[in-house]
Amino acid sequence: MDSVYAPGRNHLFIPGPVNIPEQVIRAMNRNNEDYRSPAFPELTKSLLEDIKKIFKTTTGTPFMIPTTGTGAWESALTNTLSPGDQIVSFLIGQFSNLWIEQQRRLTFNVDVIESEWGQGANLDILATKLAADTAHTIKAVCIVHNETATGVTNNLATVRKILDEYKHPALLLVDGVSSICALDFRMDEWGVDVALTGSQKALSLPTGMGIICASPKALEASKEAKSVRAFFDWGNYLKFYKAGSFWPYTPSIHLLYGLRAALDLIFEEGLDNVIARHNRLGNATRLAVEAWGLKNCAQREEWFSDTVTAVVVPPHIDSGEVVSRAWKRYNLSLGLGLNKVAGKVFRIGHLGHLNELQLLGCLAGVEMILKDIGYPVKLGSGVAAASAYLQSNIPLIPSRN
Amino acid sequence: MDSVYAPGRNHLFIPGPVNIPEQVIRAMNRNNEDYRSPAFPELTKSLLEDIKKIFKTTTGTPFMIPTTGTGAWESALTNTLSPGDQIVSFLIGQFSNLWIEQQRRLTFNVDVIESEWGQGANLDILATKLAADTAHTIKAVCIVHNETATGVTNNLATVRKILDEYKHPALLLVDGVSSICALDFRMDEWGVDVALTGSQKALSLPTGMGIICASPKALEASKEAKSVRAFFDWGNYLKFYKAGSFWPYTPSIHLLYGLRAALDLIFEEGLDNVIARHNRLGNATRLAVEAWGLKNCAQREEWFSDTVTAVVVPPHIDSGEVVSRAWKRYNLSLGLGLNKVAGKVFRIGHLGHLNELQLLGCLAGVEMILKDIGYPVKLGSGVAAASAYLQSNIPLIPSRN
Amino acid sequence: MDSVYAPGRNHLFIPGPVNIPEQVIRAMNRNNEDYRSPAFPELTKSLLEDIKKIFKTTTGTPFMIPTTGTGAWESALTNTLSPGDQIVSFLIGQFSNLWIEQQRRLTFNVDVIESEWGQGANLDILATKLAADTAHTIKAVCIVHNETATGVTNNLATVRKILDEYKHPALLLVDGVSSICALDFRMDEWGVDVALTGSQKALSLPTGMGIICASPKALEASKEAKSVRAFFDWGNYLKFYKAGSFWPYTPSIHLLYGLRAALDLIFEEGLDNVIARHNRLGNATRLAVEAWGLKNCAQREEWFSDTVTAVVVPPHIDSGEVVSRAWKRYNLSLGLGLNKVAGKVFRIGHLGHLNELQLLGCLAGVEMILKDIGYPVKLGSGVAAASAYLQSNIPLIPSRN
Amino acid sequence: MDSVYAPGRNHLFIPGPVNIPEQVIRAMNRNNEDYRSPAFPELTKSLLEDIKKIFKTTTGTPFMIPTTGTGAWESALTNTLSPGDQIVSFLIGQFSNLWIEQQRRLTFNVDVIESEWGQGANLDILATKLAADTAHTIKAVCIVHNETATGVTNNLATVRKILDEYKHPALLLVDGVSSICALDFRMDEWGVDVALTGSQKALSLPTGMGIICASPKALEASKEAKSVRAFFDWGNYLKFYKAGSFWPYTPSIHLLYGLRAALDLIFEEGLDNVIARHNRLGNATRLAVEAWGLKNCAQREEWFSDTVTAVVVPPHIDSGEVVSRAWKRYNLSLGLGLNKVAGKVFRIGHLGHLNELQLLGCLAGVEMILKDIGYPVKLGSGVAAASAYLQSNIPLIPSRN
Repeated sequence: MDSVYAPGRNHLFIPGPVNIPEQVIRAMNRNNEDYRSPAFPELTKSLLEDIKKIFKTTTGTPFMIPTTGTGAWESALTNTLSPGDQIVSFLIGQFSNLWIEQQRRLTFNVDVIESEWGQGANLDILATKLAADTAHTIKAVCIVHNETATGVTNNLATVRKILDEYKHPALLLVDGVSSICALDFRMDEWGVDVALTGSQKALSLPTGMGIICASPKALEASKEAKSVRAFFDWGNYLKFYKAGSFWPYTPSIHLLYGLRAALDLIFEEGLDNVIARHNRLGNATRLAVEAWGLKNCAQREEWFSDTVTAVVVPPHIDSGEVVSRAWKRYNLSLGLGLNKVAGKVFRIGHLGHLNELQLLGCLAGVEMILKDIGYPVKLGSGVAAASAYLQSNIPLIPSRN
Repeated sequence: MDSVYAPGRNHLFIPGPVNIPEQVIRAMNRNNEDYRSPAFPELTKSLLEDIKKIFKTTTGTPFMIPTTGTGAWESALTNTLSPGDQIVSFLIGQFSNLWIEQQRRLTFNVDVIESEWGQGANLDILATKLAADTAHTIKAVCIVHNETATGVTNNLATVRKILDEYKHPALLLVDGVSSICALDFRMDEWGVDVALTGSQKALSLPTGMGIICASPKALEASKEAKSVRAFFDWGNYLKFYKAGSFWPYTPSIHLLYGLRAALDLIFEEGLDNVIARHNRLGNATRLAVEAWGLKNCAQREEWFSDTVTAVVVPPHIDSGEVVSRAWKRYNLSLGLGLNKVAGKVFRIGHLGHLNELQLLGCLAGVEMILKDIGYPVKLGSGVAAASAYLQSNIPLIPSRN
Repeated sequence: MDSVYAPGRNHLFIPGPVNIPEQVIRAMNRNNEDYRSPAFPELTKSLLEDIKKIFKTTTGTPFMIPTTGTGAWESALTNTLSPGDQIVSFLIGQFSNLWIEQQRRLTFNVDVIESEWGQGANLDILATKLAADTAHTIKAVCIVHNETATGVTNNLATVRKILDEYKHPALLLVDGVSSICALDFRMDEWGVDVALTGSQKALSLPTGMGIICASPKALEASKEAKSVRAFFDWGNYLKFYKAGSFWPYTPSIHLLYGLRAALDLIFEEGLDNVIARHNRLGNATRLAVEAWGLKNCAQREEWFSDTVTAVVVPPHIDSGEVVSRAWKRYNLSLGLGLNKVAGKVFRIGHLGHLNELQLLGCLAGVEMILKDIGYPVKLGSGVAAASAYLQSNIPLIPSRN
Repeated sequence: MDSVYAPGRNHLFIPGPVNIPEQVIRAMNRNNEDYRSPAFPELTKSLLEDIKKIFKTTTGTPFMIPTTGTGAWESALTNTLSPGDQIVSFLIGQFSNLWIEQQRRLTFNVDVIESEWGQGANLDILATKLAADTAHTIKAVCIVHNETATGVTNNLATVRKILDEYKHPALLLVDGVSSICALDFRMDEWGVDVALTGSQKALSLPTGMGIICASPKALEASKEAKSVRAFFDWGNYLKFYKAGSFWPYTPSIHLLYGLRAALDLIFEEGLDNVIARHNRLGNATRLAVEAWGLKNCAQREEWFSDTVTAVVVPPHIDSGEVVSRAWKRYNLSLGLGLNKVAGKVFRIGHLGHLNELQLLGCLAGVEMILKDIGYPVKLGSGVAAASAYLQSNIPLIPSRN
């Protein structure tokens, strides 16, 4: 009952779902229980409090919805906007693309600012549009913090700066699926109105929980928003929050216990240390890519993602072959190139419960695969470059020193 | 990290979430994996095929959506209907009530046929309405197969008979949340157009998967249905089914492995044996209730539910006390009375991975609780009545004989 | 990969191995690790300290040996005695019998005091022997605290009193396999020199750890004891204790984590509450047996065991049939009659992680089985008697009130 | 409740306990059960049959004893020999040393053939001794197949050849703790009389099961052997084998289910493929060591171990520092140098459930550590050498191609 056995541990380097810590697997290893028992609210309350910490918000209201990132997107949009509302969205890769598709399907009037894949959101155009929109017809700016398809991280602080510059009241809705809990993310400081992530990303849980945080302004907007919504309606949750029973319908009990364990580990490591670790993993990966003579799909350093690196292969190579071979020979799972970059990039996810030696094993594997398919890589070169950096930068493990 | 420890095993007799078999817990005890690997579709395919068996359909198309029963409801409605469509719904308890609320919120024009709580759907009124609706403005009949709040099972065969009698083309949408895989349910034979359940009920999994089956007629309707939908859209799924990759977004990998194990157990026992077992558990519970001198909330035998029994307490007793005491003294989890029957009934869920001795332990507990709170029960009376029936009716375990 | 599936949870009422708490199963759900890492000694130290609490000793030295109760027996004997040493042993059932066999095989000179099965150790004869042994040739008195085969508990306080009365220096070696952590056991107060138990009994772990506690006098004796020993040698352990690395060979890492969780639960409940719970379970069982008109194998109240009840069936009934039917029809596991009482008794184990409703489910099952095999039991009678007692005696769960 | 958390997965490269496959962890994730139930013997029988396959014997009799390798040693000796019997033993490292200590403690007359640590057993001396022993006073030759302390594999085929050459009837007792199921081992072909291993080594289970296989000649010897034994006595097991109930005392139920899963995985991969994989891992490790300019403790290629490599550090370096740093900075667990080679070697265990990318991650870690402590290693050099070999030699994963 496993998807095709191979000896040893699978090296899971897709950009989600990611490796689950043993502590979290353990916490979810349990029978069901009565979530209406007098004891259960304590667990829920502790989670709602602690989620705010990983979003870096004190004023936000979190929701833990039994759904995926796609459902969390829908929740962000339908709770804050009305049919036909104008929104600005950035198309920079497959996941921003899918969100835009959803925005259209939910009948919003989407003004798309497109960039070449490999570039970040074009914020100059945003500035122009906001400047022109003195009537404030733009109701929301939707942006993916980290585009998982191209390994591009957008600069949210700048987005906020622009909004402020033009004193524009548009809501700022942020997809933090492959960023929150791995990249530097500051909901309050950056004035994010809705931020969201999925359990199977940097939180290192199984799929099944969409985690959303709404600013007071977003909550206010939800009172007027006319979009039809039922399952994803925040109002339902707020009603049950108020009643102290918390759940309008049955929650994913197992994921809640898993989240408790996951947050405990994150706080034990320290959120800033978690973010620094992801930066190390990102840097190391990029140094390896450079040593191999390959290019990062993200075109400029300012956009480099610390959670996923999309590696551009030479034109005569099909990146799908890299991924296929990784799985068939090395028990290594890499991410495919999607849509416009299909066949052109393969992706190394380096997020979640992961350390440097695991990454070096992956990089050693990628080198062998590149050689397998005829790319003239010098075996060991990427690992050497990454190791040189890591050996100077890995901190001692505090609890062991 | 457990909700308030008590020695020994919790007797979980709420009508869901229910006890998870060890085999299923084991199957979910795993790391994440790449659901886009070449191996994963085999698992998905086997599940889609086997789900049809528990819905007793050969022509239906199943969807396994990372959501709850509430989300499955929404999926059934928005995929088949357009805003303002007229539908007939039966209000017979809290869960039919919540579904009706959702139907209204999703902007359908709901014609509610209400029954006293404790009675089944009033099918005579349905007949009258259908007879009158020669223009076929009624687009769907929505019915809860088993109302979990009152322990009332509706007769779906009769609903189909009435629809056929008037040759009415309305879709038949069925909430099978606390019935499918426990009560006799025949999607094809009864001409059900959309049937749905949740993973945490008779399938005995954790919460997090809504399982929906759509008839060819429902799929046809989904092409014309104008309700706005994104996350819950079947079209997305169908596109990926066709492509052979199956998932428009990340599935609950763990629940899929759990479902595989759960279905294996169900088929090992035999679906008809599973249903017969639930009937035994239902009968035994009702005999105990009778022996205690208490009344079943379900007013007539034809409506008795084999998955949950709502027990009416005498007027001077608060049924909440029964539930509270069960938890505080006996490590027993019972269901509260909801809404109109709050304080008036407590509920014994007897569904899912459960056997007769477990039920007898629960019944023995209920007796002690009744005595605790001053109801003049003869200790042992309910267990005696249930045992007398069970001792004559429990079959030998085939694999052990 | 399960021993013959049956629906619902197996009612495990053999006197060991017993039900494992979910918390303990979780704690053992892990990869291996380096037990020579700098961190591991902390775990070991905490266990060695806490084991003393469940033996009620402050002066004893505990050993956690990767073995079973049988190995723990051997460890107790070979570490304290020399070949040919005279020891006094009580034969009161199959487990004392097996220990005596082992004592002989290990070349000790065993003076056996036999009682009818169903009676406790004959302490008068012990007194006579000790009185006569002014030369102190008797080196040890070996006694099973609780004879699992007959459900008989011996009075260790009296044994100590007799030893003291005659100022006899013999070591007191106690098999506490089915008593420690369930029955009142006081190593220091009763001057027990070696006490031992197995992980799969009242500690509610899997099999695989023999837990032994040695008094200072026993440790002193071990320096002179000439019995050949290697794997079971305490000296090896003591050497590694001194070095702070604790383990002369690889320990059962998983069982150590499991033991940590098990002890945490025991301390959360309170050891005295654990013992009181076992007393309740024992009383309830005995009341049911009486209500059925059957006899306890233990002939006098002073010997009644609170961890296992051996129930005598009428002569025309084969008790093996009770056990077989329990398993084949009711998914209930009962203990067989062993050796002299084979066919004559069946055993209900009521120890470890267990609560009252679980027991009542078992008792209800036994009633049905008795009826199945033609014994004229009144269904419900045993449960009624047990419930009447329990309803008056079960305390509120402290953490929930 | 974990020994000092660090992010990501621990790289466990001690030579045992080793990584446990998820499938095995899952199989052990269960409650206790009645091992005397009619169903349990099937499991036991399947294991006893399949164990013979991994020992490559058809005539041997296996025993699965709840103990460790140390206990398995004792079982091999006391069941076949009598006090004072003369045996020949080879001292080539710490584990052969410990076995010899045990042999002496068990009162055998041990004739030790010592080699420099890093060399294999001196078989010339064995030949001389056997040649001289025309009276056949030597009752057994005891040899460690793979000395885990030095990474030296002895040539058992040659041992057999020598015994045959002199037609010497001595029993051949083999410690296969770090060899069986990883190195080529042929019980029948090599005329091994007792072979043994521990669950936590190449079988990739938790500690707690000693697995012993006895040839017909060894079983015959056990009838005459006068060594005192109880817990470890084969006769007890054989009596219960005959009765079909298999267990003289409670087995480690969880480890039996784990073993079933472990064997299933081994057979799925194919035992010969498992052995070939270990050879690849060994070769790759040795190439890295060479690239680092360091020496293998095993002095000649004929002795190179494919399950563990002891790496000699330059005199000015303390190998303990390597191990300490691995744990404190890189979450990597390496083996210490023991006894005579303490401080002089560190050990890389490469056995059990392990693949090439995991090993490369470890090797990359070792490089960084070497640099950390001032050894002039070229980062990437070892990985490059290992990768070059692996890239040419890793087979495609059959199930995925």
